[in-house]
Amino acid sequence: MKSVTSRDNPFYKELKSLAASSQARRKAGRTLLDGVHLCQSWLELRGAPNHCVVSEGALHNPEVADIVARCESLHAHVTALPDALFGALSQVEHGVNLLFLVETPAPVQPAAMSVSAVLLDGVQDPGNVGSILRSAAAAGITQVFCSAGTAFCWSPKVLRAAMGAHFVLEIFEHVDLGALIDASRISVLAMSGYAEQKLWQVDLRGPVAWLLGHEGQGVADDLMGRATHQVVIPHAGRVESLNVAAAGAICFFEQLRQRQA
Amino acid sequence: MKSVTSRDNPFYKELKSLAASSQARRKAGRTLLDGVHLCQSWLELRGAPNHCVVSEGALHNPEVADIVARCESLHAHVTALPDALFGALSQVEHGVNLLFLVETPAPVQPAAMSVSAVLLDGVQDPGNVGSILRSAAAAGITQVFCSAGTAFCWSPKVLRAAMGAHFVLEIFEHVDLGALIDASRISVLAMSGYAEQKLWQVDLRGPVAWLLGHEGQGVADDLMGRATHQVVIPHAGRVESLNVAAAGAICFFEQLRQRQA
Repeated sequence: MKSVTSRDNPFYKELKSLAASSQARRKAGRTLLDGVHLCQSWLELRGAPNHCVVSEGALHNPEVADIVARCESLHAHVTALPDALFGALSQVEHGVNLLFLVETPAPVQPAAMSVSAVLLDGVQDPGNVGSILRSAAAAGITQVFCSAGTAFCWSPKVLRAAMGAHFVLEIFEHVDLGALIDASRISVLAMSGYAEQKLWQVDLRGPVAWLLGHEGQGVADDLMGRATHQVVIPHAGRVESLNVAAAGAICFFEQLRQRQA
Repeated sequence: MKSVTSRDNPFYKELKSLAASSQARRKAGRTLLDGVHLCQSWLELRGAPNHCVVSEGALHNPEVADIVARCESLHAHVTALPDALFGALSQVEHGVNLLFLVETPAPVQPAAMSVSAVLLDGVQDPGNVGSILRSAAAAGITQVFCSAGTAFCWSPKVLRAAMGAHFVLEIFEHVDLGALIDASRISVLAMSGYAEQKLWQVDLRGPVAWLLGHEGQGVADDLMGRATHQVVIPHAGRVESLNVAAAGAICFFEQLRQRQA
């Protein structure tokens, strides 16, 4: 285990930049995982991080000590920081002072979709994107394609909301969703409050792509036109809209229900 | 329309206190609705507010002007504030400077449940609570009962996430959920990742109460024991948990699907 005690240390500066800026994460192709749950998930699903960073105070926490020991047994770098320096790296209030620095997974994007997938067209809210990733992974979906206007998936808020779903998914960002749909043969279901075909009338037992749009404006017109189905989640109340992450969860698990029936 | 220009005005001070503190909202039995969508929904579903508060700059916005005119035609008080004073009242960045001051609806709690309902046991995150209210209302559920440990439903974040669902629901807070369950004859379905009965194997065509628990710990043991069913949402992925709001949405709409089938 190394120790860094100066704010001018280049590695500390790199961490600070990655902690504060999605742009820095994008540019470096690296991201930070914050807290015990995400770090444990990474270890279980992806193995060693590039670097494990821990505050001196957190070393007394048995869960943290266990994670540090596992990192060392996998020959990952471990660096301890004074608690005061660590504070600037974490957005989690009252969190455990533990971070993994990892290479952002960069899977090669397939030219066409052949398995069930989620397409996010301009979903803005990081909490919504994270919740969608979490629900998709829990329903057994493995691929997520995001348009340029969708929230950056490897930001702290999206990572926190997805609770490790990132590590079992293939996530593709800055995707030309129109071209992807055109190149694919599977059904593309655009969700819309104005559609007529009801979700539970669609046969979902084969692979489908779920196209979910912006919180306010929904799916963009040009993508809506390219979808093979426009589908509505039926409502029964006087409130006629759903949160996009709630809508996604309903869709993914209706598919799972039909497949398990 | 009145005009308030001093920070020392008692009405302005009341607004500031309600804007900043859930405790003040609870104590006063009043709440603030922030922005065009919530105010429009209130007008449509509940009628006149006690008071419509608007910044001078926002009066030029046609949607705001329309809402102000409707308030005046309903003989509601309307007060204009300089933009600088309004700023301290709103948590919405780049929002439209419009607020309704309303009496928090305080429906009389029934001794027992007889229609489908949602029971929230210590759900902490305001965004989750708001999303659950929104999904429940959209699925046609009309009653929500919250334990003392659940996030305050009339806070800005919950109101924003629920998008007006509050105004079609009966919301009961600080409820002794155990006593309520004991007094009720409808099925109570406690959602749990560890249960064996699968959601889609339960007959949901009659009235049921959905019991949803804390984001980390789930439903408390004593309530779990009182439920008539312990139910799991089946999973297919290597990620084995769902966000509580996503879980709620899946449950409420599985019930709607069965009812419409």
